[in-house]
Amino acid sequence: MTPDPALLSLNVATVRAQWSLEQAIDGCARHGIGWIAPWRDKLAECGVARAAQLIRARGLKVSSLCRGGMFPAADAAGRRAALDDNRRAVDEAAAIGALCLVLVVGGLPPGSKDLAGARAQVKDGIAALLERARAARMPLAIEPLHPMYAADRACVNTLSQANDLCDALGGGVGIAVDVYHVWWDRELAAQIARAGRRILGFHLCDWLVPTTDLLLDRGMMGDGVIDIPAIRRLVEAAGYVGPREVEIFSQNNWWKRDPDEVLRVIKERYAAAC
Amino acid sequence: MTPDPALLSLNVATVRAQWSLEQAIDGCARHGIGWIAPWRDKLAECGVARAAQLIRARGLKVSSLCRGGMFPAADAAGRRAALDDNRRAVDEAAAIGALCLVLVVGGLPPGSKDLAGARAQVKDGIAALLERARAARMPLAIEPLHPMYAADRACVNTLSQANDLCDALGGGVGIAVDVYHVWWDRELAAQIARAGRRILGFHLCDWLVPTTDLLLDRGMMGDGVIDIPAIRRLVEAAGYVGPREVEIFSQNNWWKRDPDEVLRVIKERYAAAC
Repeated sequence: MTPDPALLSLNVATVRAQWSLEQAIDGCARHGIGWIAPWRDKLAECGVARAAQLIRARGLKVSSLCRGGMFPAADAAGRRAALDDNRRAVDEAAAIGALCLVLVVGGLPPGSKDLAGARAQVKDGIAALLERARAARMPLAIEPLHPMYAADRACVNTLSQANDLCDALGGGVGIAVDVYHVWWDRELAAQIARAGRRILGFHLCDWLVPTTDLLLDRGMMGDGVIDIPAIRRLVEAAGYVGPREVEIFSQNNWWKRDPDEVLRVIKERYAAAC
Repeated sequence: MTPDPALLSLNVATVRAQWSLEQAIDGCARHGIGWIAPWRDKLAECGVARAAQLIRARGLKVSSLCRGGMFPAADAAGRRAALDDNRRAVDEAAAIGALCLVLVVGGLPPGSKDLAGARAQVKDGIAALLERARAARMPLAIEPLHPMYAADRACVNTLSQANDLCDALGGGVGIAVDVYHVWWDRELAAQIARAGRRILGFHLCDWLVPTTDLLLDRGMMGDGVIDIPAIRRLVEAAGYVGPREVEIFSQNNWWKRDPDEVLRVIKERYAAAC
């Protein structure tokens, strides 16, 4: 069964080099894409209230706000600043009616080699953020990132780890499953089933062979080696019925193309390769 | 406690851009490095018998031969060819007196998205190789590679997976622990303890931040974020008393330096950062 076109969402990072948030909102409306996922930098450029108004006016829904997180810091002042920033992110996510706030949890503080310590800081940071998130009824979606980002972006690197965090932290926190980060994991099926209704988002792109850059060489669905339909079926079997965000960082390919072409290709590939 | 200098080994890949195997053998002898680990391409250039003679003449020992593996293939003929090549690798490892043959097991066959199938092919391939390996008394060292290599180099990506393979395959097969591939894994301590006497090799380098290339931007020990002494203590606590191979692929830094300088820095860092 092909995926429901009404659930397709554009993560604005996919056209971040070409479009402002206003342009991305217009683009989604023009191409019949019903969902959008802004990043905070573009949201700030647009203005939160104005973005909320434009999104409503175009009849779009917001699959997520990217991103909170980056909890670990070298000292208590740094951790407090990160927490303050995350509270603002919760408020912004609520203001635009996002289904969740995605958390890219952060890696090692500068100069540190203490990965276990960073992981403890992440747990403490999410725990501290939960009061605000629960008050705002804004679910927090922990996104496990590929292990190649453990040092500098996210020290939560598997679904197993994210599930354990959810077990420990209780209500108000769930998981964003991005095929790019989890496709290699032999526990994939078991941990998606374990996540169940915790799954708050499902992100699509592809793993290219070769991959020429650790961050900015993601592929369009179908151009790489990930069995995306298989992962989609796992996520659906776990009970997830929400939007599917296309999020492609691609400095040498998709970020250089006409964004209207990018959106056309996304719709084709969503139907044919997801 | 600092690591034993008598256990330091040079993996020839660390100076592969500058030196032939003969030059690397001479270099180790000149710098008082007692162990060496050739790669098969350099070994073929030198000639196996001649390399064995030179290594003996210089009083060196061979920590491993790199590498067998690459088992998955698109068809039965491809798998047979891989197995034949691996049998030759076993013989070469025996001829130079290597402690083990390192297996980089291979990833997805071209065009395939079936990671579970590739993993099954790896298991079958090692099982088929074991007869020759046992007859030659040549231990096979499965090297779990970082998940970023799952598609194109090795679909065994965690120590947990390597331990399960060893459980299934029985005697004659063990594990090579490379800090670069496993440092991020939250099961690291538990899986090293589980591996115990299965550990056949311990490889050193460092994870740089940022990392500019997925394959060829490894760091010198101490220049990155890996807590190498902590991992060494785990490996030693598990019962490993063998050599420690320094294996650094570094196209823009160490491969461009005078290899005598590289060996001097390796000795310093081995004492100070491992």
